[in-house]
Amino acid sequence: MDKEDLRSLFLEVRAGSVDIDSALKVLRNWPTENMSFARLDHHRQLRTGMPEVVFGEGKNAEQIAAIMQRLAATGAVTMATRVDPEKADVVMAVIPAAVYHREARVLQLNRPAEPVSGSGLILVVAAGTSDLGVAEEAVITARGFGCRVETLYDVGIAGVHRLLEESDKLVEAAVIVAVAGMEGALPGVIAGLVDCPVIAVPTSIGYGSGRGGIAALLSMLNSCASGMAVVNIDNGFGGGCMAATIVRTGVELKS
Amino acid sequence: MDKEDLRSLFLEVRAGSVDIDSALKVLRNWPTENMSFARLDHHRQLRTGMPEVVFGEGKNAEQIAAIMQRLAATGAVTMATRVDPEKADVVMAVIPAAVYHREARVLQLNRPAEPVSGSGLILVVAAGTSDLGVAEEAVITARGFGCRVETLYDVGIAGVHRLLEESDKLVEAAVIVAVAGMEGALPGVIAGLVDCPVIAVPTSIGYGSGRGGIAALLSMLNSCASGMAVVNIDNGFGGGCMAATIVRTGVELKS
Amino acid sequence: MDKEDLRSLFLEVRAGSVDIDSALKVLRNWPTENMSFARLDHHRQLRTGMPEVVFGEGKNAEQIAAIMQRLAATGAVTMATRVDPEKADVVMAVIPAAVYHREARVLQLNRPAEPVSGSGLILVVAAGTSDLGVAEEAVITARGFGCRVETLYDVGIAGVHRLLEESDKLVEAAVIVAVAGMEGALPGVIAGLVDCPVIAVPTSIGYGSGRGGIAALLSMLNSCASGMAVVNIDNGFGGGCMAATIVRTGVELKS
Amino acid sequence: MDKEDLRSLFLEVRAGSVDIDSALKVLRNWPTENMSFARLDHHRQLRTGMPEVVFGEGKNAEQIAAIMQRLAATGAVTMATRVDPEKADVVMAVIPAAVYHREARVLQLNRPAEPVSGSGLILVVAAGTSDLGVAEEAVITARGFGCRVETLYDVGIAGVHRLLEESDKLVEAAVIVAVAGMEGALPGVIAGLVDCPVIAVPTSIGYGSGRGGIAALLSMLNSCASGMAVVNIDNGFGGGCMAATIVRTGVELKS
Amino acid sequence: MDKEDLRSLFLEVRAGSVDIDSALKVLRNWPTENMSFARLDHHRQLRTGMPEVVFGEGKNAEQIAAIMQRLAATGAVTMATRVDPEKADVVMAVIPAAVYHREARVLQLNRPAEPVSGSGLILVVAAGTSDLGVAEEAVITARGFGCRVETLYDVGIAGVHRLLEESDKLVEAAVIVAVAGMEGALPGVIAGLVDCPVIAVPTSIGYGSGRGGIAALLSMLNSCASGMAVVNIDNGFGGGCMAATIVRTGVELKS
Amino acid sequence: MDKEDLRSLFLEVRAGSVDIDSALKVLRNWPTENMSFARLDHHRQLRTGMPEVVFGEGKNAEQIAAIMQRLAATGAVTMATRVDPEKADVVMAVIPAAVYHREARVLQLNRPAEPVSGSGLILVVAAGTSDLGVAEEAVITARGFGCRVETLYDVGIAGVHRLLEESDKLVEAAVIVAVAGMEGALPGVIAGLVDCPVIAVPTSIGYGSGRGGIAALLSMLNSCASGMAVVNIDNGFGGGCMAATIVRTGVELKS
Amino acid sequence: MDKEDLRSLFLEVRAGSVDIDSALKVLRNWPTENMSFARLDHHRQLRTGMPEVVFGEGKNAEQIAAIMQRLAATGAVTMATRVDPEKADVVMAVIPAAVYHREARVLQLNRPAEPVSGSGLILVVAAGTSDLGVAEEAVITARGFGCRVETLYDVGIAGVHRLLEESDKLVEAAVIVAVAGMEGALPGVIAGLVDCPVIAVPTSIGYGSGRGGIAALLSMLNSCASGMAVVNIDNGFGGGCMAATIVRTGVELKS
Amino acid sequence: MDKEDLRSLFLEVRAGSVDIDSALKVLRNWPTENMSFARLDHHRQLRTGMPEVVFGEGKNAEQIAAIMQRLAATGAVTMATRVDPEKADVVMAVIPAAVYHREARVLQLNRPAEPVSGSGLILVVAAGTSDLGVAEEAVITARGFGCRVETLYDVGIAGVHRLLEESDKLVEAAVIVAVAGMEGALPGVIAGLVDCPVIAVPTSIGYGSGRGGIAALLSMLNSCASGMAVVNIDNGFGGGCMAATIVRTGVELKS
Repeated sequence: MDKEDLRSLFLEVRAGSVDIDSALKVLRNWPTENMSFARLDHHRQLRTGMPEVVFGEGKNAEQIAAIMQRLAATGAVTMATRVDPEKADVVMAVIPAAVYHREARVLQLNRPAEPVSGSGLILVVAAGTSDLGVAEEAVITARGFGCRVETLYDVGIAGVHRLLEESDKLVEAAVIVAVAGMEGALPGVIAGLVDCPVIAVPTSIGYGSGRGGIAALLSMLNSCASGMAVVNIDNGFGGGCMAATIVRTGVELKS
Repeated sequence: MDKEDLRSLFLEVRAGSVDIDSALKVLRNWPTENMSFARLDHHRQLRTGMPEVVFGEGKNAEQIAAIMQRLAATGAVTMATRVDPEKADVVMAVIPAAVYHREARVLQLNRPAEPVSGSGLILVVAAGTSDLGVAEEAVITARGFGCRVETLYDVGIAGVHRLLEESDKLVEAAVIVAVAGMEGALPGVIAGLVDCPVIAVPTSIGYGSGRGGIAALLSMLNSCASGMAVVNIDNGFGGGCMAATIVRTGVELKS
Repeated sequence: MDKEDLRSLFLEVRAGSVDIDSALKVLRNWPTENMSFARLDHHRQLRTGMPEVVFGEGKNAEQIAAIMQRLAATGAVTMATRVDPEKADVVMAVIPAAVYHREARVLQLNRPAEPVSGSGLILVVAAGTSDLGVAEEAVITARGFGCRVETLYDVGIAGVHRLLEESDKLVEAAVIVAVAGMEGALPGVIAGLVDCPVIAVPTSIGYGSGRGGIAALLSMLNSCASGMAVVNIDNGFGGGCMAATIVRTGVELKS
Repeated sequence: MDKEDLRSLFLEVRAGSVDIDSALKVLRNWPTENMSFARLDHHRQLRTGMPEVVFGEGKNAEQIAAIMQRLAATGAVTMATRVDPEKADVVMAVIPAAVYHREARVLQLNRPAEPVSGSGLILVVAAGTSDLGVAEEAVITARGFGCRVETLYDVGIAGVHRLLEESDKLVEAAVIVAVAGMEGALPGVIAGLVDCPVIAVPTSIGYGSGRGGIAALLSMLNSCASGMAVVNIDNGFGGGCMAATIVRTGVELKS
Repeated sequence: MDKEDLRSLFLEVRAGSVDIDSALKVLRNWPTENMSFARLDHHRQLRTGMPEVVFGEGKNAEQIAAIMQRLAATGAVTMATRVDPEKADVVMAVIPAAVYHREARVLQLNRPAEPVSGSGLILVVAAGTSDLGVAEEAVITARGFGCRVETLYDVGIAGVHRLLEESDKLVEAAVIVAVAGMEGALPGVIAGLVDCPVIAVPTSIGYGSGRGGIAALLSMLNSCASGMAVVNIDNGFGGGCMAATIVRTGVELKS
Repeated sequence: MDKEDLRSLFLEVRAGSVDIDSALKVLRNWPTENMSFARLDHHRQLRTGMPEVVFGEGKNAEQIAAIMQRLAATGAVTMATRVDPEKADVVMAVIPAAVYHREARVLQLNRPAEPVSGSGLILVVAAGTSDLGVAEEAVITARGFGCRVETLYDVGIAGVHRLLEESDKLVEAAVIVAVAGMEGALPGVIAGLVDCPVIAVPTSIGYGSGRGGIAALLSMLNSCASGMAVVNIDNGFGGGCMAATIVRTGVELKS
Repeated sequence: MDKEDLRSLFLEVRAGSVDIDSALKVLRNWPTENMSFARLDHHRQLRTGMPEVVFGEGKNAEQIAAIMQRLAATGAVTMATRVDPEKADVVMAVIPAAVYHREARVLQLNRPAEPVSGSGLILVVAAGTSDLGVAEEAVITARGFGCRVETLYDVGIAGVHRLLEESDKLVEAAVIVAVAGMEGALPGVIAGLVDCPVIAVPTSIGYGSGRGGIAALLSMLNSCASGMAVVNIDNGFGGGCMAATIVRTGVELKS
Repeated sequence: MDKEDLRSLFLEVRAGSVDIDSALKVLRNWPTENMSFARLDHHRQLRTGMPEVVFGEGKNAEQIAAIMQRLAATGAVTMATRVDPEKADVVMAVIPAAVYHREARVLQLNRPAEPVSGSGLILVVAAGTSDLGVAEEAVITARGFGCRVETLYDVGIAGVHRLLEESDKLVEAAVIVAVAGMEGALPGVIAGLVDCPVIAVPTSIGYGSGRGGIAALLSMLNSCASGMAVVNIDNGFGGGCMAATIVRTGVELKS
């Protein structure tokens, strides 16, 4: 319902082809769809460029399946994050076309066959083996939105040469998503080496005073490196989504 | 000192035009410059695309002036952030060409006459009058890096229509830097309305349980909106720098 | 035992119809009832307008059933909150007249057949599907106290138009209970749109740095919107009870 | 700009008395007024029943004076909170009609001569002498909005009989605003004694582990008393405003 | 090994009845007993007046049984706290004389048949039914140390008259142990009513922002009432032990 | 107004020597005295054994002087804590009989000439020179309440022998008030050495992660030593008051 | 790949025995080994003197076994920490030579038959029986690295003489690892008694306000004793490793 | 007063050359010296190898001067830390031989003319110019204890090559003290590069969510690098002291 639609509506009202009560109703009925337990926002893709994504935690498998079916009916990419394997099995029994990414815990429907041509490369970097679940959530999310994604795993700063020896890969990327738990220093080191934006994703991996990811989060927020911003702890989806949004900005400026 | 330089070095060593000790020395002498109280990183602009910027807090005016002179000698844009008016006066007495932005508390030298053509628009949005200092730091930073910047101030969510009536401006932006204190809800509302990346900057404006900006920071990190990432509290420089890095990504993909 | 009762007592003492030791005893025996594991406060309804409500967490089913029976014996509305389905089954086996609201986890006895006429409308608004349990606790509580309640669910601020399109409903309410997790921005946006009191209820829905609801709580406390106050995290009962207390104030002024 | 206005606009468009571009412009120009450093929300009183109030902290005296003059031009009650005596002197030199409440640190213009008849009594209760500044902010705010307000000071729970002996006053109130620092237990004790809504206002009075008011805030949020909700630490304005909003609900239902 | 013992030792050394190496050995061998997994402090009762008590959490049933047997061999009162029913069953199979207090989760051996005559009364007061486990730990501990203990349960401040009507009991006590979760206001109200020391014990009962007992702890530490001190959250043992230590002080002064 | 007074009142009412309205008035007029900015609790000494003490922080010198004069008029010990030297000078100009203890920042009137005979010794122990202000507040408080007090300063645990060599003094005490900042380990070490109650007072002395006294507070709350309880950070008054309350318990049992 | 290696490479390039692309490749291929889920850092032992150690938490038994086999292939000491008994059984079925230390939860391969001669003694001291798991992790780690280790357990400060009577042992140590939960005061007391470095290891043993080890950690960081530093909560591995690194420093200076 | 002294005392007692009361007195009079405001621990250097050091914060200049004079009278190295220039001037007027290190804010007397021969090198590394004060405190402390110290400043990880190019210096060190504020990642990166112990010192340099040094502290505690331990925020003295203690261990093993 953008400005042009509004102008058309006024023209129709003036021409009498639309009566006033209908006009009022149109203005009231934004394109949301009210299910008993959810209110779908079909308009979101037009508005933000990203379709609505189902946050699977705290919803049961039946709810996830029902919402995904409605969202997928429009042909748009449809995803549900934070879905346990058990729930995923139930959803896939209902929607056989759904694909489940076990490590990332993401369900997808209507995902693009291959990346949108011309968009920049997203590089997802992870500090340790234990951070892979969050990193994969970022990977699957960005691929679902049609992005080209590569990965670089287990390059934490306890052996900084493991990272430096892959500097070619770092330099190629249009955006880097850097995932780390423990002291969370990896994104800052990377941001000091490259000229592209870095999205830092803290994870809850660790123990003692850092349990829950708070040490990694604070470390990333307080980094003295520039060209870097942070998303919530374990929010691989958020990291992948921000990277996709940035890369798309590049694509759009290009066209 | 990139890969091509390294290849050239090997070629010269093989050709005998460079002896081995000189080669070792070259590899050792990365382009840093060691002042008694600071170690300048002239190489940073090549590596990260952004020149080194002086963090003015905790340095005296003489140190700031000396570092700025050295950095500016290369002709690069030179900035110092978090500079009080008193320190700024001292620096400008030494370096008359320096420009001081009072609200942003930023000193600049060699700043570009006008934005680099072709780069996307950065829109800096602030929730309240009290957030302007941080917002202006973002504005001056991004302009210093050659970006096209516009502003939209005092559009906090206590009257959400003030924001909605400016939706044209929001939609035009390539990147939005959203600055807010108190409950910090503004960036999330914006991210739900636009299709470009949103950089959220929490400020320390507020009182009581939110004093210090922690409420705004947590609110932004926990937003359910996507396409958004966060920098540290009051870090206007970081927000402007991240926005400039993203816009440049777009420009580069374009060319 | 109000002022008039006290005057009567003195009159009876003076008249000799009550002897002094009895008078002392009356003053000592406020209307509490001492069960072995609980001390019932039958006087509370007279004093605060609300009957005592059983907090089910940390009590076993037998204790809940026994307390509810005693409280219900006076004919007053009787509720137990935070009751698991397993405990509820046990209680309902003992008290067949009890009604269990599964999503709200509330047990009720002697609930009013329909709302007290003339009282204002309470609107319970929830940001997301995952907040429904807390929202329903507020709904059932307020209805139990004889209030007229309607609901508006899944209207979080990531798509603020979903809320705006329901502005008719918002404007009709005498009190709004706004329930939200994550960044907790919904109540502040609503309070900026309406002229009635808003009770904000943060929920523990979320993850990472906001886990436990602390981000939502701080966001609500620091809102720049006015005409709003906050209850504890996940305290749907408290929200519903405060709303009922306010609405009753209106009713009483009316009569 | 309510629904009826919108209908009128459509009628005029259909009648041709308003052309389409004007209609678009009207829809774009909500009643905000853009000063260089602030964006006034004249529409707020219509929307929320409360006029916009100036938060004086972080604004200079000239800005406060300028904003107050514009807001007061409409004849509405105009207030600025958190104004130091020095700033207040400057503002009153510019606007001689302004009244300054020193303890509450509030400036007022166009305040109502006497309370709106028929509205319920607001009782502001404070635990200690040190809490009076915050309590007075609540008092002046509510009186500014036309409410009838009485006070009850220095009745903290270290001598609970000081409170009990004033139970007549407590029982008369339509709403109670209970202000306390230290352990913040006062509002919970009051809420257990009365049948009207209690707004709890924690203050930053105290020392050691409670410094900043966090102990009082947590105590109030976790109270087992019902019919009570909480505002931010030291937010006397918020407490007074919520009380006024509730009382007005009562008045409106009455008429 | 007090001063007199030391003097005797010197006398014996001078007399030649003890040789120097034996004297050194005596000084080295304080009365501790080294089991493979624990080092018993038999000397503690002489030194502190209280026997060593076994903290059962993090020890298995066999360890608890072995330590209790060694400690009990001296005839002293022997206790183990925080013992689950399962562990208790194992210990009682090994030591049939042990008595298990299920609600308090305390095991006892050699407990005194009745209170030491002449010592003052300890009154353990609990705010709610859910606080009983912690309160009972205090009760059993103090009785184990030979104290006279009475209880007053479910007298939380949401109905402050329930407490006031028992003021006779409060006034009789030599020490009061006041146990409360939620907002933890009970001990402060009591300390304002009585002239004996009050030991405040916060419990972890509650939810939301107070989960874990932090609200109750802070409330108690920040109370404006005097003659009150606080122990750790859920530390019923510590409360009972402090009360017993105080009462014993009274007894000793008496004799 | 104790039980016997109440009985007398009833007797007089029955006898007709007191009319009912007078009786009601007596019951309403508890012995509080309402000054414009404070409500004095003359009854407190009867109820809690301790007179009301003025918390000087946040009150001006005139208020302190006025309250002290009213309180002292009854002949009771009168104290004001947390009084700066400047305020103290003003108060002493008004009340020449007042004595100011500079290190403790306490003002006293009507203090007892010497300790009440027969009461046990209070020993105030401080870990470091920087803790003396808080320790002295405890000393002056307890002496003001008629207690016999000795001190032992600068015996922190970094050289535990400094403490051990004073074990004679430790053993003599009826109650120990142990004051420490930094890591706050002193009270726990003492409690492991003595058989009397230990009141632990954390101070805000320290830096870095312990600034504000939180490390000392947590250390004391989590001590594995028994017979110890804790008051708020820097609350020397609270520590001295609790010690005096305990010692008095002993005295009373004695008589 | 140290400086000499680099010189050799240049010599070979100049001599033509190595071509340039091979040289580049050598520089790129640092000695890491890329398994699909991990990137082994064989170079670490050369660089830091310590082989890479597997953090077992968050890895499955198959991953642990595979990584240990690769690391052990070089003959170096190989360890995995935080391995549950169940995982350990699986690993030992695959690698029969592996030894599992149940209390420490550490798996080892190729561990040295006896300590490296000449290195100083590491003494691991633990405050309570519940701290033994963490203490044993330190013991096994340091022994794995060839150190001579002795232990001193259950000497917490509630009975400080238990510690003092073992002062001979304390004085013999070259480094002390002091492990404590609860109030964490043990390391500070020890550091005040000895002249060797003390590594403080806080544990998560405790309850209430100290749960998670935060009280012990803060206590240790804020100790006024010198010659002491701290590792993360429950990080026995880190404590043992730091001790081994220090002792080796001594050995190396010696040779 | 070590074991041999004790044996001698017994021999003298047996021989009758020392009478028993004198022996008792000797045992009581450990070598502490009781000034009115401090209790000097002359024995500390024998016990811990480090002389007592004056913590200057919270002491006035006169106290500092008096304590330093007494301590220096023994000829031992004498230091006072955290001394402001103003206090230093006063002390130096009293003790002209004292040397003041302005950046480190340390006063010294009797400091060694040159390092003790044979001890390993301590390298103090600082991340940024703003960390120099803390770093210099470490430097002056370690030099005061006779250590050989070098420095490496402004090598933070935003340009990790600045650090790598100084790897020769890193490798030479026997112990490294790594000082960093902001995200505190420097010590972990260093610990991954070297084989000597690393003492990490977080500083309070930074802003926003890291203000006070908490982000740096947590980052260091949670580092995945080994051979590293942490001291309190801004505790340069503690870092230098721990390094000196370690280096001395090496020296002693050597001899």
